[in-house]
Amino acid sequence: MSFRSLRAAFAATASLVAVGGAIALTATPTEARAEEGMWTFDNFPIQAVNQKYGTRIDQAWLDRVRNASVRIQGCSASFVSDEGLILTNWHCVVGCAQELSTPEHDYVKNGFLPATREEEKKCPGQTAEVLTEITDVTDRVLGAGQGLEGAAFNAARRAEIGRIQQEACGGDAKFNCQVIDFYRGGRFSLYKFRKYDDVRLVFAPENQAAFFGGDPDNFNFPRYALDAGFLRAYEDGKPVETPNHLKWNANAPAEGDVTFVAGNPGTTQRLLTISQLERLRDQQLPVTLIQNSELRGRLLEYSLTGDEAKRVSFDPVFGLENSFKVYYGQQGALTDPAFMQVKRDQETELRQRVAADPALVQQIGDPWADLERVQATARDLYLPFRQLDQAAGGGSTLYQMAKALVRAAKNTEATPEQRARLAATMGEETPIYADMEEIRLRYWLSKTREYLTVDNPQVKAMLGRESPEALADRLITGTKLGDAAFRREAAGMTLEQLTAADPLLAFVAANDDAAKAIGDRWAAEVTAPTARAAEKVAQARFAAYGTNQYPDATFSLRLSYGTVQGWSYRGVTVPPFTYMGGLYERATGSEPFNLAQAFADNEAKVNKETVYDFSSTNDIIGGNSGSPVINAAGEVIGAAFDGNIHSLGGSFGYDGELNRTVSVSTAAITEALRNVYPNPRILGELGVR
Amino acid sequence: MSFRSLRAAFAATASLVAVGGAIALTATPTEARAEEGMWTFDNFPIQAVNQKYGTRIDQAWLDRVRNASVRIQGCSASFVSDEGLILTNWHCVVGCAQELSTPEHDYVKNGFLPATREEEKKCPGQTAEVLTEITDVTDRVLGAGQGLEGAAFNAARRAEIGRIQQEACGGDAKFNCQVIDFYRGGRFSLYKFRKYDDVRLVFAPENQAAFFGGDPDNFNFPRYALDAGFLRAYEDGKPVETPNHLKWNANAPAEGDVTFVAGNPGTTQRLLTISQLERLRDQQLPVTLIQNSELRGRLLEYSLTGDEAKRVSFDPVFGLENSFKVYYGQQGALTDPAFMQVKRDQETELRQRVAADPALVQQIGDPWADLERVQATARDLYLPFRQLDQAAGGGSTLYQMAKALVRAAKNTEATPEQRARLAATMGEETPIYADMEEIRLRYWLSKTREYLTVDNPQVKAMLGRESPEALADRLITGTKLGDAAFRREAAGMTLEQLTAADPLLAFVAANDDAAKAIGDRWAAEVTAPTARAAEKVAQARFAAYGTNQYPDATFSLRLSYGTVQGWSYRGVTVPPFTYMGGLYERATGSEPFNLAQAFADNEAKVNKETVYDFSSTNDIIGGNSGSPVINAAGEVIGAAFDGNIHSLGGSFGYDGELNRTVSVSTAAITEALRNVYPNPRILGELGVR
Repeated sequence: MSFRSLRAAFAATASLVAVGGAIALTATPTEARAEEGMWTFDNFPIQAVNQKYGTRIDQAWLDRVRNASVRIQGCSASFVSDEGLILTNWHCVVGCAQELSTPEHDYVKNGFLPATREEEKKCPGQTAEVLTEITDVTDRVLGAGQGLEGAAFNAARRAEIGRIQQEACGGDAKFNCQVIDFYRGGRFSLYKFRKYDDVRLVFAPENQAAFFGGDPDNFNFPRYALDAGFLRAYEDGKPVETPNHLKWNANAPAEGDVTFVAGNPGTTQRLLTISQLERLRDQQLPVTLIQNSELRGRLLEYSLTGDEAKRVSFDPVFGLENSFKVYYGQQGALTDPAFMQVKRDQETELRQRVAADPALVQQIGDPWADLERVQATARDLYLPFRQLDQAAGGGSTLYQMAKALVRAAKNTEATPEQRARLAATMGEETPIYADMEEIRLRYWLSKTREYLTVDNPQVKAMLGRESPEALADRLITGTKLGDAAFRREAAGMTLEQLTAADPLLAFVAANDDAAKAIGDRWAAEVTAPTARAAEKVAQARFAAYGTNQYPDATFSLRLSYGTVQGWSYRGVTVPPFTYMGGLYERATGSEPFNLAQAFADNEAKVNKETVYDFSSTNDIIGGNSGSPVINAAGEVIGAAFDGNIHSLGGSFGYDGELNRTVSVSTAAITEALRNVYPNPRILGELGVR
Repeated sequence: MSFRSLRAAFAATASLVAVGGAIALTATPTEARAEEGMWTFDNFPIQAVNQKYGTRIDQAWLDRVRNASVRIQGCSASFVSDEGLILTNWHCVVGCAQELSTPEHDYVKNGFLPATREEEKKCPGQTAEVLTEITDVTDRVLGAGQGLEGAAFNAARRAEIGRIQQEACGGDAKFNCQVIDFYRGGRFSLYKFRKYDDVRLVFAPENQAAFFGGDPDNFNFPRYALDAGFLRAYEDGKPVETPNHLKWNANAPAEGDVTFVAGNPGTTQRLLTISQLERLRDQQLPVTLIQNSELRGRLLEYSLTGDEAKRVSFDPVFGLENSFKVYYGQQGALTDPAFMQVKRDQETELRQRVAADPALVQQIGDPWADLERVQATARDLYLPFRQLDQAAGGGSTLYQMAKALVRAAKNTEATPEQRARLAATMGEETPIYADMEEIRLRYWLSKTREYLTVDNPQVKAMLGRESPEALADRLITGTKLGDAAFRREAAGMTLEQLTAADPLLAFVAANDDAAKAIGDRWAAEVTAPTARAAEKVAQARFAAYGTNQYPDATFSLRLSYGTVQGWSYRGVTVPPFTYMGGLYERATGSEPFNLAQAFADNEAKVNKETVYDFSSTNDIIGGNSGSPVINAAGEVIGAAFDGNIHSLGGSFGYDGELNRTVSVSTAAITEALRNVYPNPRILGELGVR
């Protein structure tokens, strides 16, 4: 368990100019463009790809890529040496860099560039996982839920999934077994991962090199960002041997070259029904955007109050602005009449096919109508669910810790192993910034009062006679949860002991029954019937279009294919490459367009013709951050870190004309390790002279 | 010209729980519920009202009420003594109280309660206007635009309107003549006002008495707020004689009593077409809500940095949160499928009537299709229009001053009188808070870069090589516009002189051509064709439903009627009255639910049975704040200050079952002047013993 927020929304550069009118989604899955799709490794369209590109992909190629692909928290990565060296994005390791930093050693601002392997530092809570086996368990999972509804349905499925995972992994800490949902309930697969939980930071450039252009350039292209970082997997104190790594190719690709991206796209919502999309558009996204904007304003003002405030708020502001842009782009797609019309046409087409097949109707009923009813319930429950459970604490780390401790103390069925694991996690050192904690808590408390109203019983119970500001201050000032030793101790306490020991624990304990109750209602009245209906929509889809489809993203390993390409929009053509010289042209000297120190100091040495970043047609989404970009020969040629502005609607549909992946080239990383952050040790390990 | 922001959104208490499902708008204007409507004084349904309520309203009654009704900036008010005493809301005078305050004398926090008339203080820029005459000028205005389009249409209309106003008022500073649009271009009337421009603050209670419950209670009911304040109109240094005032009735009404509200509802959008509503829903409201939320977060964090920060941010935060809630409520209505369906049905009905009348089709064409095309243009232009012109400066007072000075210097046709007026306005003392100015400016600059993109030519021109933060700092630190003497001097300068004299003036001057260009495009390509088409929709409406309709609100004097009533929603019945004792029960001691000092000190004296606030079915909206609530006898019994949560969709339609006006009773004001803020002087003037 890590308290770092999931970075499943990839960092990127987006202007917020409305994008619309040009979306050309394919009408039915059977007409999917060749580049569309986040394919599972057990259903990759090998033949179609080889035919289209003249490549020679085969099962062995796929296995090699799979074995070199690494899943890390919220991101993707790959082994690139035989000593456990992992390539990913800087923005996937910056959280670790922030945690390892102190006011004296700021690895975010100055980079982390140790000269020796001995100085590589463990990232708290970080794991690395390699997918070793895929097993279809659809029948067992669907069978367990058969004939059940609501909480009973959830419980039966959860129990069966637990059994499947337990049977496959036993108690072996070197493996992680996870049953993953595909096609929104159409298929379930057991994914077995080899797991490493000693992962160390090897290299992070200065934030200003990695995130040049900051939020304004995020989700934009052309782009000049060294968004790359290295980790290393250790076991028993030694680097892991990884013969199955990707060969490092320091040459940039050419326009039109075929590119594969292997990684873990977090979530797409392409298979949602119209009623589900409309609830997102009318309620969930607006509330999320509005609340996130207020928090953004609060954090930005705080960040301007001093150097230390700026330092500690860097990563949280970055994460918040990044996800804001993602949601804003999603909202843009859903409020685009042309886009929604295409989705409506697709749904109508599928429902007509179903209606024409009486046996199928008999089997599945009308899941679209079921989902429409679920949305009415979801509209009623969403605000209390969001404020009291899902988004409770406003992102406060201390609140999350308190909640974990309280829930564990209430769980009478926890095993000794689970308790030991909690104590170990809680005992890990992690920096806590009291100001940030207090901002988040008072923001959450005041929004909860605002959205649920002053006279709501839960709001009254939480606030008592205090104001959100005074309560947040009292809880954060008084809590001992910033102390790892106290947390470890708390992991062994009863609910009564927790309540007596600490004001924040007492607060969470007092209000947790209500939070759990609304969470349980959401699970029984929204999650369960959604799963029941989605399973039937998936059956309809298989019946209508066959199994040659890719499933929605579920932070599971996928392979996407495409080519190096720019795009044209409203008469403007954007070429697919930027060069390192362009960085110096774009720099203004003012944040966030100032040069990183090392880039400024070493300008004379840098080869300005080096390809810096490039765009390709691969279909990816947040969670793919850090994914290796691979050529037909199976060599790594870049790390995907972003999408262009047009990719923001990608959650709901892929537009081959406009949707682009943005990657940092291995050529640029190599040049940086040669002449900007000279590091012969890593270059040697990558096999570069 | 005043630099205070227009408070045309009335203060109120709203929970943000989604309100929907219960909206029962009438299908066509002819079926309008009796309580619906913001009627002009020359088209009030006297007979229908008298029949329904057994009242004896006649033209003389209407004239008396009109002559006692007062329009002030962004609010409504009424004369309540024969010496120019004006009743309005506290929240309509708090801006004045804030401007008159200093760190030593905080009239917002402590109230303004002078013992003698000599201590009444002039509110900078405040005027008071009484409507004396209404003349129909529809033919002249429509005739001027005949056959013209775009900028030429705007110019011709503007010129004709200018002529009409000039002919009616001449140069007499005691009058204000204004041609006002009714029925969205269906009718134009000349409103002639008697104008007073020496208006002084007489009484403002403590903010904690007036705004008890703060933003959380705003747009909610039951409510416990003394949202009342008094001004006084002066002329030639003496109080104005006002024999036409409303008689003060210190007794609270009973449930079911008929109530009239006379005031200036700011804007309703009930006659907009579906395509216009959809653009509001999909673009304008979301962007406004998102940006306002970020500014809200910035200001809230700033307000917590110290006592002086809290003091100077009070009124801006209050205004921002109030308008945020209004927009949020509007968005709630437009994203409610049932609500939009009613609007769609209404439009379909009207269009069918038109289609059935070939002569009408011949005359008006298809204005709905015209408006749909205008929306496409508006979607393209909105973001640059908003960022560069409409919302430029982010609410910075200094920016607005600079813009006014630059525009005046560029206006080669300005008359000597206009220049003198500008110099006088600019020379008025007004407090400037540099921190607040800088927050607003950097917020605006960073949002402009975000929404228009880094590479937008106007963004590049504005920022040059500076960051939004550094630029805002340089401009606000360097400008001399905080000094009234410098501003007066600047009002006589050429553009070159302005540029040389001051960095903020130089910045605005350098970027104003681009701002004006997009403003002109919006006027020509959106405003003008919208007016052209709306005029035709209005003709269709008159043809279909006759003239017995009320027009959309345009901050012009209206009369609404209704009765004292609570409401029921989802099984909960809310009674129409609160009592002063309830205040003491609701108080928690924590902001914003702490008692005002005087209410705490005088608890033993206060008659807790006094009706405090009450709800009625009157159809009002922002701008009506401060309106007198009048009984059938023509006496004032309260001041309207808010709507309930259900009133937030009132911009687009009135729901008689749920939509309620919230007013503070004259009974409560009287009790406060007796036992909380004892003031025999004012009580005597009101004729109360």
